[in-house]
Amino acid sequence: MKPVKVGICGLGTVGGGTFNVLTRNAEEISRRAGRHIVIEQIAMRRDNPACDTSGMQTTTDIFEVATNPEIDIVIELIGGYDTARDLVMTAIENGKHVVTANKALIAVHGNEIFEAAQEKNVMVAFEASVAGGIPIIKAIREGLAANQINWLAGIINGTGNFIMTEMREKGREFADVLQEAQDLGYAEADPTFDVEGIDAAHKLTILSSLAFGIPLQFSKAYTEGISKITPQDIQYAEELGYRVKHLGITRRTDKGIELRVHPTLIPKDVLLANVNGVMNAVLVDGDAVGQTLYYGPGAGAEATASAVVADVVDVVRTLTADRDNRVPHLAFQPSALSDAPVLPVDETTSAYYLRLQAVERPGVLAYVTRILGEKGINIEAIIQKQTTEAQVPVIMLTQRVEERMMNEAIREIEALPDILGEIVRIRVEQLAD
Amino acid sequence: MKPVKVGICGLGTVGGGTFNVLTRNAEEISRRAGRHIVIEQIAMRRDNPACDTSGMQTTTDIFEVATNPEIDIVIELIGGYDTARDLVMTAIENGKHVVTANKALIAVHGNEIFEAAQEKNVMVAFEASVAGGIPIIKAIREGLAANQINWLAGIINGTGNFIMTEMREKGREFADVLQEAQDLGYAEADPTFDVEGIDAAHKLTILSSLAFGIPLQFSKAYTEGISKITPQDIQYAEELGYRVKHLGITRRTDKGIELRVHPTLIPKDVLLANVNGVMNAVLVDGDAVGQTLYYGPGAGAEATASAVVADVVDVVRTLTADRDNRVPHLAFQPSALSDAPVLPVDETTSAYYLRLQAVERPGVLAYVTRILGEKGINIEAIIQKQTTEAQVPVIMLTQRVEERMMNEAIREIEALPDILGEIVRIRVEQLAD
Repeated sequence: MKPVKVGICGLGTVGGGTFNVLTRNAEEISRRAGRHIVIEQIAMRRDNPACDTSGMQTTTDIFEVATNPEIDIVIELIGGYDTARDLVMTAIENGKHVVTANKALIAVHGNEIFEAAQEKNVMVAFEASVAGGIPIIKAIREGLAANQINWLAGIINGTGNFIMTEMREKGREFADVLQEAQDLGYAEADPTFDVEGIDAAHKLTILSSLAFGIPLQFSKAYTEGISKITPQDIQYAEELGYRVKHLGITRRTDKGIELRVHPTLIPKDVLLANVNGVMNAVLVDGDAVGQTLYYGPGAGAEATASAVVADVVDVVRTLTADRDNRVPHLAFQPSALSDAPVLPVDETTSAYYLRLQAVERPGVLAYVTRILGEKGINIEAIIQKQTTEAQVPVIMLTQRVEERMMNEAIREIEALPDILGEIVRIRVEQLAD
Repeated sequence: MKPVKVGICGLGTVGGGTFNVLTRNAEEISRRAGRHIVIEQIAMRRDNPACDTSGMQTTTDIFEVATNPEIDIVIELIGGYDTARDLVMTAIENGKHVVTANKALIAVHGNEIFEAAQEKNVMVAFEASVAGGIPIIKAIREGLAANQINWLAGIINGTGNFIMTEMREKGREFADVLQEAQDLGYAEADPTFDVEGIDAAHKLTILSSLAFGIPLQFSKAYTEGISKITPQDIQYAEELGYRVKHLGITRRTDKGIELRVHPTLIPKDVLLANVNGVMNAVLVDGDAVGQTLYYGPGAGAEATASAVVADVVDVVRTLTADRDNRVPHLAFQPSALSDAPVLPVDETTSAYYLRLQAVERPGVLAYVTRILGEKGINIEAIIQKQTTEAQVPVIMLTQRVEERMMNEAIREIEALPDILGEIVRIRVEQLAD
């Protein structure tokens, strides 16, 4: 069969990895795909020392690739929002299929991009945009197609998981580990995207749409970072049998869809709690299959390239399938998307870990538990730490409750004269049903 | 679009689950697939009380389904070898696509079945045949298509893993736990298939072909069961930092393909070591992606049905793709299969756990280590247990060596006058590269 010609836009980390995987494994890939996949052109701002592009057609103009009549598939690996959007839209306009690793682009501009692609009868594949080399999009979109997905929870930011792992294993402070992660190149100079959960929210937005068949709604995702987590809270969580992870969680409820990224206590014997370092994992709960988990590297040149190239092969395979029989971009047919609302965070439900600083005086705990009781919040466990000082830390685990009620309770408890400072509150998920 | 009509052959556990998932999730599935999937006919020997088949067209003759001109896809869920083979070949002969959960059938008759399917331009899908609801076949065949797979290792028999987990957690004997598993319905009355590794070898044979592009060669798989594992060995392994799991392992080497099922010591902090009870998991090492792991329920009515129905949706989606662009049955194009040989077990390479019973006399250990040294076997760790008796257990971990050399060494060591009885030998894998 005729070779398929691809153009690579961006020869940075992932672009370089993609170039190397496509060239090194060319034979193995064509044994699978049934035809050769040829790199026709590369758009790059500068050489990547990891790649030997001698003899290749290169350009500094990405739009040259997007409009090159020889090219069947444009691989967008430049990152960012606006230029990437223009590039992808131009490629679609020119009848080209697109493969991208850009979660920000898909989470923010995906609806518009998929609509354009549908109109032009081309595919936009984005496996690499979530959890790097783990084929999680394929798993949810195809492998679990028989299920009504109930919820999914994932460690989908490697930097954040590295920091949480180091803090737990070595009792180190957040700022200290972040500095190390920056020195190691795991974290950006501006770490906001990673540690404040924005990157994870991009990915979760995509997974949520695939799981529940809703349009992409990044702006409605709730994000809370890990910068306020202390080694102390991690230690108390351990004592209670839990581990703190920065999770993206999306859940279908009767009222709508929960879409939230925040630090979370999970039981320490579940597999997800034992995903350490920069690794990613996503746990999916479906009504037929029950729980399945997908684990692997969430970043890295060739790990991400693995997903990019798998997408290229997928696109090649469906070139002759008619549009209506292809796997839909968001797993569900565009005409069958759901209008279930994404819930504001105060309408979501969760159990809670609370840490209070109380003056050591008889009756304080009674006031606290009465307020919780009035809000219908049941307490699962309490630890009151012995101390020689005049104030004691009190740690509580509650049962599930709507966040709105917890907010009210916390406001009232913080107003008690014997409660000092702000209450630390971390959500708890059993991941059991 | 026109509905797709399926016929279900077999309404036992998995058949009943498939019926229920297809009916309960009909709407969700058609939102994904873009058309309705309708159960046209069911062949069953008796009613399944879990299924309401009233108003359905039923028969006791599976071949009626295989030849029913109304039916597009035949779902084979009767199990076994010969009748299942005849049924599947008849369905193919009649131009029908086939979905099956039957690992024995695929491992033993797959080559012949796929050849017939290829000729008649129909698909035979078999995701449910390995690891139940985990979409592992899709992951290897499509999700990791960019990679040269180096090796994979899996817990792919839930009964065996349940037994190993109970033995470790409670220090129980094999026979005792097996009895309980039989009482719970996890193990068959004749447990040979599960505990001797035959079922796992069926599944591993399939995974190996998908990973390396070799024809199915079940007869060349090495299988060793768990019936000789003692709580004592599990305990010693823990002391050394390892856990004993019944693994299927297949690896590409310069000389050929390793294909082996046996109890294995793996480091207890790797995720695979923490897969407990009846759960399954497969760890795959690819040259681009590195390690990814897939975890979930390996059996059960609806978990397996999840994979069966996902296959149905997959088949529906590629109905209009021309044959050469479809995902090949064994991941690689039929014309591109490899003739790499499956290695006899004595040509495979592994590290070893050895347990010897030695007379407590100076110099015994020197004899043993000299024999190992002569065979080029390096020792990683030795534990000599203190005892009040005249004989002591000696536990050793060796580095990797060809099995042939280990066999020779064991023969010589067992011939030493101060070594009593047979040496216990369990393979060790670090799962690190």
